[in-house]
Amino acid sequence: MSLIVQKYGGTSVANPERIQNVAKRIAQGYNEGHSMVVILSAMAGVTDNLIHLAKQLSKEPDRREMDVLLATGEQTTVALMAMALTEMGYPAQSLLGYQVEVKTNEAYGRARIMKIGKNRIKDLLNDKKIVIVAGFQGIDELGNITTLGRGGSDTSAVAIAAALNADVCEIYTDVEGVYTADPNICPKAKKLNKISFDEMLEMASLGAKVLQIRSVEFAKKYNVPIHVRSSFNQEIGTMVINEDKDMERVVVSGVTYNKNEARITLNKVPDQPGIASKILKAVGDEGIIVDVIIQNTRAGGLTDLTFTVPKTEFNRAMKIEEQVAKEIGAESVVGDEEIAKVSVVGVGMRSHSGVAAKMFSSLAKENINIILISTSEIRISCIIEEKFTELAVRALHKAFELDKE
Amino acid sequence: MSLIVQKYGGTSVANPERIQNVAKRIAQGYNEGHSMVVILSAMAGVTDNLIHLAKQLSKEPDRREMDVLLATGEQTTVALMAMALTEMGYPAQSLLGYQVEVKTNEAYGRARIMKIGKNRIKDLLNDKKIVIVAGFQGIDELGNITTLGRGGSDTSAVAIAAALNADVCEIYTDVEGVYTADPNICPKAKKLNKISFDEMLEMASLGAKVLQIRSVEFAKKYNVPIHVRSSFNQEIGTMVINEDKDMERVVVSGVTYNKNEARITLNKVPDQPGIASKILKAVGDEGIIVDVIIQNTRAGGLTDLTFTVPKTEFNRAMKIEEQVAKEIGAESVVGDEEIAKVSVVGVGMRSHSGVAAKMFSSLAKENINIILISTSEIRISCIIEEKFTELAVRALHKAFELDKE
Repeated sequence: MSLIVQKYGGTSVANPERIQNVAKRIAQGYNEGHSMVVILSAMAGVTDNLIHLAKQLSKEPDRREMDVLLATGEQTTVALMAMALTEMGYPAQSLLGYQVEVKTNEAYGRARIMKIGKNRIKDLLNDKKIVIVAGFQGIDELGNITTLGRGGSDTSAVAIAAALNADVCEIYTDVEGVYTADPNICPKAKKLNKISFDEMLEMASLGAKVLQIRSVEFAKKYNVPIHVRSSFNQEIGTMVINEDKDMERVVVSGVTYNKNEARITLNKVPDQPGIASKILKAVGDEGIIVDVIIQNTRAGGLTDLTFTVPKTEFNRAMKIEEQVAKEIGAESVVGDEEIAKVSVVGVGMRSHSGVAAKMFSSLAKENINIILISTSEIRISCIIEEKFTELAVRALHKAFELDKE
Repeated sequence: MSLIVQKYGGTSVANPERIQNVAKRIAQGYNEGHSMVVILSAMAGVTDNLIHLAKQLSKEPDRREMDVLLATGEQTTVALMAMALTEMGYPAQSLLGYQVEVKTNEAYGRARIMKIGKNRIKDLLNDKKIVIVAGFQGIDELGNITTLGRGGSDTSAVAIAAALNADVCEIYTDVEGVYTADPNICPKAKKLNKISFDEMLEMASLGAKVLQIRSVEFAKKYNVPIHVRSSFNQEIGTMVINEDKDMERVVVSGVTYNKNEARITLNKVPDQPGIASKILKAVGDEGIIVDVIIQNTRAGGLTDLTFTVPKTEFNRAMKIEEQVAKEIGAESVVGDEEIAKVSVVGVGMRSHSGVAAKMFSSLAKENINIILISTSEIRISCIIEEKFTELAVRALHKAFELDKE
């Protein structure tokens, strides 16, 4: 008899029929004798509709009121789910953010969870109730509604699982788990049985959309095992857990890619202290997040500085840097939107050498030129021309023996 | 500088454009220097859509969860209104039932307000904020969401006005006020400048749909002046206030009708103690509300008992009474759905005689047969054949000199 926290995303509860299917799955766990706490997202499309409604009244809607508005999405789903379960004869009750007491800071639209109330949920579980909790929402110190940002229901689920000391947090989604690569472009990609928190963090930050990155940080911090699986079948998915000996034996666990970045290079920058900082502060002050940064030294006290920004911010960043280039006396600013980042991730890298060399040679063998390189302890990323993305992913997937059964 | 509580119904906030229009009207009051507290209903149609959604999951949805679901309607409107006002440059903030602390009993779907928290609203008013409150919703002792039943936003508004000791509670609707009769069938009907709480209570219970009856009870109890007016123009509407000398001079303030009832008669009932009670208890136990009751004595220890029930309950009530008739030895049960109730209402009746006689003779002059009569201190109602309804209303409107300027 375990305490299971489940989370179902918007596509899993998109209409009354799917809500009934999810209700059956919840009932199954309850029938097996488990204590069930279920976190739900808004029905697919609802959040976008609410945003559209708000934009008709205000170009930049008041953030506090936006959260009041968006929170209705999850409120609707939990009420409907509790009704569906009650109709099936199961004792279910919904709880909203303020009823659980999901306490957050006051950052409307991107609030961070500070504390989770346990008593109300535990009382209901003691009464043998199935507890259905609205994800994505919390309250601040004054009882104002806050929301956690896109994908925040994942974080709600993991935080509640941590607070309740749950045996597992099952995240139900429309894919079957975490794969060695995107199956859409790499047909030989395989579902991973398990992956470490650190690897999952790298994968999430590299654009794998299975889990919200903050939920993984939470899971790592409180050591909550996450089971990522599909709500449309009964297959076992991927366990996201603490690193173990097995994982170290595998050099690379997965290959990811990200086409959402663009490159900006300032050529022939005077190589003086503080210049790099000036270049990067200019975009940072405008709220533009810089990812990879590389500086090459040229002859004659000159240097080239290259960095990447999100494609959506490319035009704005280019304008800023053209101004900066004039000020610091750089020769030119060039940009390129047609790039991609391919990465290999694996905790095994810590104890295995030669991973980078193998990555570079694999790409070279396919005549793929590497524009930029960045690394972390368990990740190597290469910026390449966008058109080679799929080829690169498949080549790396094969080179690191992920194609094998 | 007054404290004004305003309430806008669903048609007044049915779409973004109307929300903007209402925002302008609220801003007007604020610009005049008043403290503004605004109670809103759900956008027209939204509540029905939510009920439809729930019915797809459960024939008789769990009442607690139904209230969680329905409360999203008002939550949406208050967020949008606060955004609209903020966009126009006014400091507005929404509050939900749990944030105000609208404490109710636990009767989901038809909860009664027990207590209204004042502090949160007063703090915001002190900060010169416009306070936008979700109507229709409250919370019980445990913080569960409750709703007040159809039209409950009127009651929310009056209760909040009472708690804050507001100068006036303005109820904005799609009509211009309270009329001497339904203008749709009585072209000479006039808008009343004022009407007493007691008269309004009688009118509301007789089917005039301008105000929810419980809101008038509240207003009377706490002596909150209500101003019923249109949200689509700037006209002065009708003041619902404590009785004054002027009102007593008018014998009849209004003529109303109600086509929602049906008549049931048990013929030749043995005239024994407890028989009437047995007949009426049978339907009462099934939750059917009986309105007019008349008993006529026949010769030979027999009596006829007639009563009216809502038309929607007619078939069910007939079946019940056919069973009762057998048990008590009544000769027959006959029913009639084609009846209507016409009523004259006025506090002046208390001090004027001959009102009933005038009513009966006016109807007789038009050859309208009176089937049943019932009276209160300030009302006389006649049940007549439904087809004569409009004729009767116009005849009474003229007879009691309501046609005059």
